[in-house]
Amino acid sequence: MSEIIIAPSILSADFARLGEEVDAVLAAGADWVHFDVMDNHYVPNLTIGPMVCEALRRHGVTAPIDVHLMVRPVDRIVPDFAKAGASVISFHPEASEHVHRTLQLIRDAGCRAGLVFNPATPLAILEEVIDSVDLVLLMSVNPGFGGQSFIPSTLAKLRRARALIDASGRDIRLEIDGGVKADNIAEIARAGADTFVAGSAIFNAPDYRAVIEAMRANVAAG
Amino acid sequence: MSEIIIAPSILSADFARLGEEVDAVLAAGADWVHFDVMDNHYVPNLTIGPMVCEALRRHGVTAPIDVHLMVRPVDRIVPDFAKAGASVISFHPEASEHVHRTLQLIRDAGCRAGLVFNPATPLAILEEVIDSVDLVLLMSVNPGFGGQSFIPSTLAKLRRARALIDASGRDIRLEIDGGVKADNIAEIARAGADTFVAGSAIFNAPDYRAVIEAMRANVAAG
Amino acid sequence: MSEIIIAPSILSADFARLGEEVDAVLAAGADWVHFDVMDNHYVPNLTIGPMVCEALRRHGVTAPIDVHLMVRPVDRIVPDFAKAGASVISFHPEASEHVHRTLQLIRDAGCRAGLVFNPATPLAILEEVIDSVDLVLLMSVNPGFGGQSFIPSTLAKLRRARALIDASGRDIRLEIDGGVKADNIAEIARAGADTFVAGSAIFNAPDYRAVIEAMRANVAAG
Amino acid sequence: MSEIIIAPSILSADFARLGEEVDAVLAAGADWVHFDVMDNHYVPNLTIGPMVCEALRRHGVTAPIDVHLMVRPVDRIVPDFAKAGASVISFHPEASEHVHRTLQLIRDAGCRAGLVFNPATPLAILEEVIDSVDLVLLMSVNPGFGGQSFIPSTLAKLRRARALIDASGRDIRLEIDGGVKADNIAEIARAGADTFVAGSAIFNAPDYRAVIEAMRANVAAG
Amino acid sequence: MSEIIIAPSILSADFARLGEEVDAVLAAGADWVHFDVMDNHYVPNLTIGPMVCEALRRHGVTAPIDVHLMVRPVDRIVPDFAKAGASVISFHPEASEHVHRTLQLIRDAGCRAGLVFNPATPLAILEEVIDSVDLVLLMSVNPGFGGQSFIPSTLAKLRRARALIDASGRDIRLEIDGGVKADNIAEIARAGADTFVAGSAIFNAPDYRAVIEAMRANVAAG
Amino acid sequence: MSEIIIAPSILSADFARLGEEVDAVLAAGADWVHFDVMDNHYVPNLTIGPMVCEALRRHGVTAPIDVHLMVRPVDRIVPDFAKAGASVISFHPEASEHVHRTLQLIRDAGCRAGLVFNPATPLAILEEVIDSVDLVLLMSVNPGFGGQSFIPSTLAKLRRARALIDASGRDIRLEIDGGVKADNIAEIARAGADTFVAGSAIFNAPDYRAVIEAMRANVAAG
Repeated sequence: MSEIIIAPSILSADFARLGEEVDAVLAAGADWVHFDVMDNHYVPNLTIGPMVCEALRRHGVTAPIDVHLMVRPVDRIVPDFAKAGASVISFHPEASEHVHRTLQLIRDAGCRAGLVFNPATPLAILEEVIDSVDLVLLMSVNPGFGGQSFIPSTLAKLRRARALIDASGRDIRLEIDGGVKADNIAEIARAGADTFVAGSAIFNAPDYRAVIEAMRANVAAG
Repeated sequence: MSEIIIAPSILSADFARLGEEVDAVLAAGADWVHFDVMDNHYVPNLTIGPMVCEALRRHGVTAPIDVHLMVRPVDRIVPDFAKAGASVISFHPEASEHVHRTLQLIRDAGCRAGLVFNPATPLAILEEVIDSVDLVLLMSVNPGFGGQSFIPSTLAKLRRARALIDASGRDIRLEIDGGVKADNIAEIARAGADTFVAGSAIFNAPDYRAVIEAMRANVAAG
Repeated sequence: MSEIIIAPSILSADFARLGEEVDAVLAAGADWVHFDVMDNHYVPNLTIGPMVCEALRRHGVTAPIDVHLMVRPVDRIVPDFAKAGASVISFHPEASEHVHRTLQLIRDAGCRAGLVFNPATPLAILEEVIDSVDLVLLMSVNPGFGGQSFIPSTLAKLRRARALIDASGRDIRLEIDGGVKADNIAEIARAGADTFVAGSAIFNAPDYRAVIEAMRANVAAG
Repeated sequence: MSEIIIAPSILSADFARLGEEVDAVLAAGADWVHFDVMDNHYVPNLTIGPMVCEALRRHGVTAPIDVHLMVRPVDRIVPDFAKAGASVISFHPEASEHVHRTLQLIRDAGCRAGLVFNPATPLAILEEVIDSVDLVLLMSVNPGFGGQSFIPSTLAKLRRARALIDASGRDIRLEIDGGVKADNIAEIARAGADTFVAGSAIFNAPDYRAVIEAMRANVAAG
Repeated sequence: MSEIIIAPSILSADFARLGEEVDAVLAAGADWVHFDVMDNHYVPNLTIGPMVCEALRRHGVTAPIDVHLMVRPVDRIVPDFAKAGASVISFHPEASEHVHRTLQLIRDAGCRAGLVFNPATPLAILEEVIDSVDLVLLMSVNPGFGGQSFIPSTLAKLRRARALIDASGRDIRLEIDGGVKADNIAEIARAGADTFVAGSAIFNAPDYRAVIEAMRANVAAG
Repeated sequence: MSEIIIAPSILSADFARLGEEVDAVLAAGADWVHFDVMDNHYVPNLTIGPMVCEALRRHGVTAPIDVHLMVRPVDRIVPDFAKAGASVISFHPEASEHVHRTLQLIRDAGCRAGLVFNPATPLAILEEVIDSVDLVLLMSVNPGFGGQSFIPSTLAKLRRARALIDASGRDIRLEIDGGVKADNIAEIARAGADTFVAGSAIFNAPDYRAVIEAMRANVAAG
């Protein structure tokens, strides 16, 4: 299995001192910066956009920025995020009329392209476009709504996604987002995930490094 | 005339250290924090939402936060901003089916209610709801698009808005947003504005205090 | 002044025995049946549609049925209501791209055509199409939201609408909807209204006839 | 097999005396009241909303009310129907961006949650959320359009749905709506349905009891 | 008064030999080519887009092409028409959230910018943006619907538009579209129009030149 | 295998002399006229509508006109195209809420009904409605965007579609659109296509007949 990636979601960070927070979590061993974009249309919340991404790059962040678009439609904002320094751009297939085209648009802009699957969304569309995908993100909670815990049936879905990815022979990250914690990460990794988004589990902990190291250790032991 | 209010737009601040930026501009003499919310639907950009507003309050900001909603529709996000600490919430009448109802919703949530007029939007609707309005914001550029300068015909529109407000006998702020600088603020104030949004004019200057003091001095001299 | 019309809104009637309720209120002296249609899009509620209108006609109701469409868009459902027995069909100008066309569509279907003005909507559009209008309905509360009382500024708006109608020389009813009761109807009539929608004021009263007669008496005394 | 349920659709009842109609059909042996909600957006018709549901409860109806939402979007109206006394709330997965979330919303409001499949909609999404579903409704005609007969390919789809439900081991009703009559109900039941919506077949018959008893007898004989 | 302009609408021409038709009508004395774009959203019809405009330029048409956009939204398609050779681009203010911005977009693309007023649309917005407008088009029928005749109240509206234009001191064409014929053109011109769209009146006539000359003669005599 | 059909897309023809172009390509051996309709909503372009189709019929075209609707929603425009002379009408399942109903609508209007699959769209829906389909069109580029070449994974998808069609035992054409040329048509035909759309490959060639004959020869040899 490929090396795991820990991607703290900055939605749980302190927005009044975001540069400092991101520096701290990267210094504590995080690999990517996970960046959740909500538009108050695809999900009932509005978070942060390209200017915040660009500010992180200007602040000196060099780690990959992993942008998860919870927006509808998708295409207009893709170039804005590419220009603002995004490394990966993922979107929900339901939110784009022309999914293959959006994947190409992201890649043509110099980013890696990801598809995000809601808890209820079948993986069928992944089979159609697996040649054009660099990352698959499975949601283990419903995006845009707070206070949820990891949906257990996601484990079976991770195994199905892992099988599709392995069968393709392509280099595709399998990311999981929602309710990931040090105490369930091993089971999630065993089901096939190699990239882990965690928000409050990291940013609400007193010691970022301790949590991240515990996550890695549990996966390694798992 | 009522005392003027300077409301720097944090869209021009450094989002990597927003708390510090806001502290600095308030220490330099600013009165309000202007907070521009774009949803990638009403305008083609997505900026910042309630979580960023709440972070400023948690950081210790006590000055009024003046939220300008460039979103469509409006009603769902109003309670989120009220809960996040907004003091004034303004919206575009075109973006709400039930403008009188939205004004009431803002006030019922404990905030002051504002109406925003695009450069092309007539003031007629203001006459219908002037009893329910605490602030009128005239856009002197088109919201959501960069690189524009103050549209000259806004001066005549300010005079018309000022006349309506004075005729109502009510305590309503008349705010202006777009291309306001130290060298045109006196003319804008003479046309009737008493509340001034400025973004890059303040945050791109080496000395925030110098700009804000120049603005006040020019209005006083004007 | 033309004879007044009392139009009880069946939204406050008992839907389990609607035919009986309508019979009773007409027997008690009501002139029209007011029929509020909400689609959960133009307003956040969904009420009753053409099939309920048709059921009233089949039940034997011969009084005019006065349909107020709180729907968006408007045109598709107009023929359905005409076929179901509507006498007047009114709509909100904001909810139709082609207001003049919608007015014609209603008249071509054999009904009288009305325009409804929300509390915040200026009367300007009425001046453009006054030749094609048979009824003007001013909302004195926000449509689709409960628990509101009569908005006082509606009285001034009624006077402006009355002046426009009188200047046109045309036979146009001026209807008012929202918070109308026996104790404010005289003042509303003096401001120019000649057609009065009342819901709970009638259907929640123990004696429909007593309320309707009190309304007429107060207008006559007014 | 579980006991069958007959759910007459009140869309075929007389809306002028709906309480009486519902009493009669329940007295004649019906199990549930089927309640079809159309919003003139998801389907080109507008029928009845929460106020009519609430009137039936106030009238004294205690049988389960089985609400089929042909509306888009879904979430806003769910709490209204729960509060109005709905027992089951079903929706079309195409009409909600977040199907898993909507199912949870219905259950959190104290109702049973159903998913409705149009004739052309594959069952794939059912496999993803079968843990969160209490009822599956297959449409055997296109919802919202009149004058259609039972689409024969629905029988094969019923068999596939039955297999999925049985494999899940969960207690999920399999309902069918569209063109169900006494003379085809046995075949439909053999294909796996256990809950039967019928509108005109019951309400247009001279004797409700005779039809309902014939339906039960044919299933039993089938 | 400025010289009049006759702008035949190619919607009435033969699309199988459009180049030839346009050549013929220009040779017969027409000044502009009027180009009606419908998108099946703003109006219930779909006509012709940028590729047809470009084909006319490639065919050798050098006369001004006067594009009337009956589309919603407007901004995305403006550059396509500018690139395809449009000379004037007009749009409906209801169809753009940011009317002043759209006018600038058209001018920045090198075209003249027009605003179109439906029969029911007040002229108020024209007063706000008259500095940015090169053409005002009043619809004397409802756009996108067939079989209509000239709406008489348009004459009064033309007089109001003429007054606004004259008061501005700017060089703005006042165009009329809908039911214009040789026998009513003089009256329309007297009300203030200087640019005349005609479709079937020209293209359905046996002799294009005869009609166009009659139109000019009637205006001159008028 | 059934005889192949060559369907030149008139989007690559000269719109200034469309009748002549269509006559020429049919005389050169083409079987069908392929007619691409874009509405600037489902795809970001606007092309041609029913009036152009009707003009071709009036011009004397008797070959089948194969209309590909890249519009959303679909139903309103179907009768317009049927009346304008369309022979086949195809649409994207994502663009209609009620796919089975739209297929029936097309057939009831006297046309053959087709379903179009974008590169990312799974074939699952085809299995649900294969009884109601006369043509399946696979897009081998993204519709509405220029400058693309044949997506290689379409070959595998053609094989899957061919298997579904053959298993159904029904007479359904399997059409392919995007990047089809004389030098790859044999491979595409071997994968199962029997109907071939080609635009620039034919209309940009000096000799239409030579290209069409080469296509047929390569398929025959293939």
